[in-house]
Amino acid sequence: MDALSTRFSNDMAHVEALLSQNVTSGIALIPDLSHYLLDAGGKRIRPLLTLACASLVGYEGTLHYPLAAAVECIHTATLLHDDVVDQAEERRGKASARLVWGNSANVLVGDFLFSRAFQLMVETKTLKVLEILARASSRIAEGEVLQLLSLKNLTITEEHYFNIIERKTAELFAAACEVTGYLAQAPQDTCDHLRRLGLHLGLAFQLQDDLLDYTATSDALGKSIAKDFLEGKVTWPWLMLYQRVSPSEQTWMQSLMDNEDQRPIALPLIIAMMHQHHLFAQMHDLVIHHTQAAQDALNHLGGPQDVRNAFGDILQSLAHRRH
Amino acid sequence: MDALSTRFSNDMAHVEALLSQNVTSGIALIPDLSHYLLDAGGKRIRPLLTLACASLVGYEGTLHYPLAAAVECIHTATLLHDDVVDQAEERRGKASARLVWGNSANVLVGDFLFSRAFQLMVETKTLKVLEILARASSRIAEGEVLQLLSLKNLTITEEHYFNIIERKTAELFAAACEVTGYLAQAPQDTCDHLRRLGLHLGLAFQLQDDLLDYTATSDALGKSIAKDFLEGKVTWPWLMLYQRVSPSEQTWMQSLMDNEDQRPIALPLIIAMMHQHHLFAQMHDLVIHHTQAAQDALNHLGGPQDVRNAFGDILQSLAHRRH
Repeated sequence: MDALSTRFSNDMAHVEALLSQNVTSGIALIPDLSHYLLDAGGKRIRPLLTLACASLVGYEGTLHYPLAAAVECIHTATLLHDDVVDQAEERRGKASARLVWGNSANVLVGDFLFSRAFQLMVETKTLKVLEILARASSRIAEGEVLQLLSLKNLTITEEHYFNIIERKTAELFAAACEVTGYLAQAPQDTCDHLRRLGLHLGLAFQLQDDLLDYTATSDALGKSIAKDFLEGKVTWPWLMLYQRVSPSEQTWMQSLMDNEDQRPIALPLIIAMMHQHHLFAQMHDLVIHHTQAAQDALNHLGGPQDVRNAFGDILQSLAHRRH
Repeated sequence: MDALSTRFSNDMAHVEALLSQNVTSGIALIPDLSHYLLDAGGKRIRPLLTLACASLVGYEGTLHYPLAAAVECIHTATLLHDDVVDQAEERRGKASARLVWGNSANVLVGDFLFSRAFQLMVETKTLKVLEILARASSRIAEGEVLQLLSLKNLTITEEHYFNIIERKTAELFAAACEVTGYLAQAPQDTCDHLRRLGLHLGLAFQLQDDLLDYTATSDALGKSIAKDFLEGKVTWPWLMLYQRVSPSEQTWMQSLMDNEDQRPIALPLIIAMMHQHHLFAQMHDLVIHHTQAAQDALNHLGGPQDVRNAFGDILQSLAHRRH
């Protein structure tokens, strides 16, 4: 994202200012907890997408700033609630906010940020923006519920896995891009291409994230290897492995889901089996597939060449990211 | 609320249908959990206020239905999150949803309902409606945070207590009334009177609720007497008592906040002391004050006489409610 980050650093300063303004409250806990997470070095991918897509569609106003801030507020709210659901102890390399302020504060400050997101959206005075982001929020919540229900469930289908990642990740990427089309009153097919761009970028991003969880080393990713697996979170490689092994191996894999303590011991064998079944290579092909679909959407859009190039670079680096 | 309930039963059927439609999801847990709470006999006070106020301002369209449903969705979402924060075991006379489905499901289904509320609001195509309800939602979240921070704190001021109840309860009552003015494109002063009506009704309602917690018998209220006190929740009578007793009695009161087990034993004495300081009578005067302020707002509004009478009856019965 570095190229986009540099290209839109001035615009992002406006967004950061709006974020700061919108987490202020007479109750100090609210800005304290919000800034703890907002200032912890998140990559601001989603608001950057909003800024960049606004540029692609030639939007010349200033309402993309509150819109980008709204998108980041929604994202931050979902992180706070996710951490309660996952009982997360770490987020962005430090103790999770819920460990510092407690689960209740995480839930309520999440609600506050979510409400503030809608207040920011109202500033755009564009009902279609509110419609899309409200719908995205419902779908994100559905994705989170689906993920909760699928925890440790090895019999879910590949389609089910894609349903989860589309909702919990790609939906907000898609909405963050799509809304700029309506803001700029662009033609419907432009809005559709923007949505496709965000959707496939989001899917590629999440697939790559789930792949790297198994293949990246701890140092490069800044988190422990196979964190998803160790927490009993079922992602694509684990699902696919389960579908390809013998019934006795399936029983063993199920026992690993039931016995947390056994997982670290089994990890090297699991990874070797995944390699043996070429799952990482196949998953990498899926990443490529979605970066290409995103590139195709990008090819249907106009906009400044340097922004288009920066988007292309993101897609390229996603396809080749190794850590 | 019986008179209003009867008067608007046809309209409420539309709202109930919208509520059912909007909690549907491909993920069964979402409608299951939502209906568990929605069908548990809530009084639908807030959507009734929306329907009744739409009538007061002579609104003749159908957009007050999604609006009323949105208001109930926001309320239901806050109840789900409240129960996680309070670790509530009971809600509307049965086991709380979080005991049945877990805290995580409560948080996520709350998020879903909150998002659906905004989708319903978008249907009104009235930005002012979204502005008011998004702002109300922020203020509700702030009220909940404030209440969380004030738990067991006996040194909070009366003003602080009113700040909490205004945000956590009266704000949504106020917004539920106010938005109908904008929907009907009524003059600004009408919108302001609607807001005052809801605000003071909400304050009277919450004050009465906090009063009855101490004075009602278990049978009449359908919940254990002095539940707030037993849970260490500081409300008006407890605050006022603390301000009026001697330092040694204050120390004893503080020790009750720190020792849950001591509270049931101390309860009869606490209630006797509250009587002795005329706190229940004074709190009743506060209820009257706010029902009168609501009546004053009502007097500035027009609308069908039977609806105005029904409102008047609610204010009267609030002022005299004993259980």
